[in-house]
Amino acid sequence: MKQENKSLEQLTVAYQLLRWTLLVLPVAIMVGSLVALFLWLLDKATHYRFEYGWLLYLLPLAGVLIYWLYRLGGKNAEKGNNLIMDEIHQPGGGVPARMAPLVLLTTVITHLFGGSAGREGTAVQIGGSVAGWIGKKLGLTARDIRILLMTGIAAGFGAVFGTPIAGTVFALEVLAIGAMRYDALVPCLIAAVLADIVCSSWGISHTHYHILYTGVSSSFVPFLKTDFLLLVKVILAGVAFGLTGFLFSWMIHAIKYNANAYIKIPWLIPVVGGVMVILLCYVVGTRDYLGLGVYSQSPDGVSIINAFSGTSTISDWSWLWKLIFTAITLGMGFKGGEVTPLFFMGATLGHTLALLLGAPVDLFAGLGFIAVFAGATNTPIACTLMGVELFGANNVLYYAIACFTAYYFSGHSGIYSSQRLVVKKYNQ
Amino acid sequence: MKQENKSLEQLTVAYQLLRWTLLVLPVAIMVGSLVALFLWLLDKATHYRFEYGWLLYLLPLAGVLIYWLYRLGGKNAEKGNNLIMDEIHQPGGGVPARMAPLVLLTTVITHLFGGSAGREGTAVQIGGSVAGWIGKKLGLTARDIRILLMTGIAAGFGAVFGTPIAGTVFALEVLAIGAMRYDALVPCLIAAVLADIVCSSWGISHTHYHILYTGVSSSFVPFLKTDFLLLVKVILAGVAFGLTGFLFSWMIHAIKYNANAYIKIPWLIPVVGGVMVILLCYVVGTRDYLGLGVYSQSPDGVSIINAFSGTSTISDWSWLWKLIFTAITLGMGFKGGEVTPLFFMGATLGHTLALLLGAPVDLFAGLGFIAVFAGATNTPIACTLMGVELFGANNVLYYAIACFTAYYFSGHSGIYSSQRLVVKKYNQ
Repeated sequence: MKQENKSLEQLTVAYQLLRWTLLVLPVAIMVGSLVALFLWLLDKATHYRFEYGWLLYLLPLAGVLIYWLYRLGGKNAEKGNNLIMDEIHQPGGGVPARMAPLVLLTTVITHLFGGSAGREGTAVQIGGSVAGWIGKKLGLTARDIRILLMTGIAAGFGAVFGTPIAGTVFALEVLAIGAMRYDALVPCLIAAVLADIVCSSWGISHTHYHILYTGVSSSFVPFLKTDFLLLVKVILAGVAFGLTGFLFSWMIHAIKYNANAYIKIPWLIPVVGGVMVILLCYVVGTRDYLGLGVYSQSPDGVSIINAFSGTSTISDWSWLWKLIFTAITLGMGFKGGEVTPLFFMGATLGHTLALLLGAPVDLFAGLGFIAVFAGATNTPIACTLMGVELFGANNVLYYAIACFTAYYFSGHSGIYSSQRLVVKKYNQ
Repeated sequence: MKQENKSLEQLTVAYQLLRWTLLVLPVAIMVGSLVALFLWLLDKATHYRFEYGWLLYLLPLAGVLIYWLYRLGGKNAEKGNNLIMDEIHQPGGGVPARMAPLVLLTTVITHLFGGSAGREGTAVQIGGSVAGWIGKKLGLTARDIRILLMTGIAAGFGAVFGTPIAGTVFALEVLAIGAMRYDALVPCLIAAVLADIVCSSWGISHTHYHILYTGVSSSFVPFLKTDFLLLVKVILAGVAFGLTGFLFSWMIHAIKYNANAYIKIPWLIPVVGGVMVILLCYVVGTRDYLGLGVYSQSPDGVSIINAFSGTSTISDWSWLWKLIFTAITLGMGFKGGEVTPLFFMGATLGHTLALLLGAPVDLFAGLGFIAVFAGATNTPIACTLMGVELFGANNVLYYAIACFTAYYFSGHSGIYSSQRLVVKKYNQ
């Protein structure tokens, strides 16, 4: 019986729970509040861009501004999410406090002038930066700062999407491919839940997406109480979602690499990127691929919300256009996250695949929404849980199948280069 | 750019997906069918026991029978779940095929004569045994057999509870404390989904539990859009659930240890255990703590189903009685799983705590159902997903909080001694 000190052990846990609640509280309050400010500014920026169309033509200039802001005050803050992940893997110089205001400001600039980008990267960087700053102020050990940084990721992610459980699991799952360690499980949950509460309490509400499909199926094979045909369609879509995630992370890396290789004057990179985005708008003939893309300027434009309905103007290649717009924006020096554009690619591709395969459009838009993201960031369980938090439990089986399949097919790299490969997805 | 062989890589994945689907197919069909047979027999056994009350008095004799069955044909099959986990950690002599029929038969005997036990252990052993047998027949490598064994666990668990996603994550999560490896993620999902489909197709239906509480709360602090008081109650309940899981695994180990230390004639152990269970029935004055406990003989007895309703006969110590009945039954040589009794302890304790704390009874019964299990087996994410699969997504936040807290407070051991401690839950 090796159980002697057990009652003492439970006291240690109670102490740890209390200690981490207190440590995480300032992180959650600051991150939740900053994310609320960020989401409010983002909404303002989007509406200004809709109202004043000429703002787009200043995008190249905005790129130069962002370049100089990071040049002047950035130091290593430019490394963004990867810096936070590196500091968690191997504590070094710490995450600089300046990262939070810099990324917040530059992301809003990117969105105001029409760059195609997301918000989770920004929220995660706000989280990591605040957590690092508080950890340093409190004089915590390197081990505690490491956990506090993870709670910062959870808080940022949980608050920005209103999905605290997905945020918690994301913070643990994103660090490595093929494995998840639970050392910060409870602190991350506390941080994500509190930050989400703080953010909502500032009056921020998150977009609601609806999947009306309830899985009441006419079974293909009467004997089997399952819609096997739908199951196969979900797997096929999952493969497509995974390949899309893979294509996006490949393209963003390729654009970054080539831009740095061929454009020798650094501030010229975002200028070229901005001009390319403007030209692309004329090529495609719409501005629906700019910005976040949650909603569009005209009510029936291409947007994430409209991807969930059967009667919209989404084209077969909407997902690819968003992929190109975003890869150029983020690959050439603008700021923001990748996840909302990944939602966009997934939802529009899901929409298209549903029409192609004869499947429920809302279900497949929802599956794409979470699964392209699962593939590109290698976080299948966080994304399955996100599906539950956003769309309800009716189709949780399909969420898991789509996300796990996409994860399987997205290769051994993702959009975060600091993610470590721990367990290979398969053996050659 | 290290991306040359990527297109080839995706082909490898497609090949692996096809290969594992084919390998897993016979496992899923056999396990799903055997679990269906098992659940059908279990239901019959429960009804026979209700009808013929005198069967209970034969429980000591049934114990001797089980002892001799394992003595004659068991070899190392006695080690059960732990053997399967050991074989996954470190391939050795393999999981014997005889484990499946032996555990199926002896579990039904245990339930027929009134032992207090579950079913997941049996289902998991059927799964592991079938997978090991098929792996050997097909001449697979040790590495492939290892993954096939994990798919067996997922198939057994997914089919027996009708929760394929929880089954998938359980198979990965149960092997170690504090970490999860994803190497068998997709094969496990295929196995769990198919086995569940096969099991349902045999006409097996699973009990439905309902949580009507929808989280529409009257907020305690008007400014914060959250029912903070309920959140605190859920955390307190989570602590109690974790300690219950810890107490159960401590007690079952203690009973096993002491029985072997003090009763020198091995077949006498189940005899004594059987007599103790009979005597306990007279002490408590009810037979509601025998068997599975999903439903009781009289409609208003103590059962899992009744724990979800406000108007039942559940006493403040129902959870403890079930804990004692089950620890004696399983600690002294009878067969079956631990999980359904853990559901019982959790649901009744949740019921009691809800009345004590002034919280929704159905919600807290559901939280206890999954969280005691999460604590005792150290599988918080599988249990959160199980909550979603069984009760829907409305209260997923509370599922996660209860399960993660219970996990935190259940100590560094669990009911499976072969579970490895990889990452400590906290640092002293």
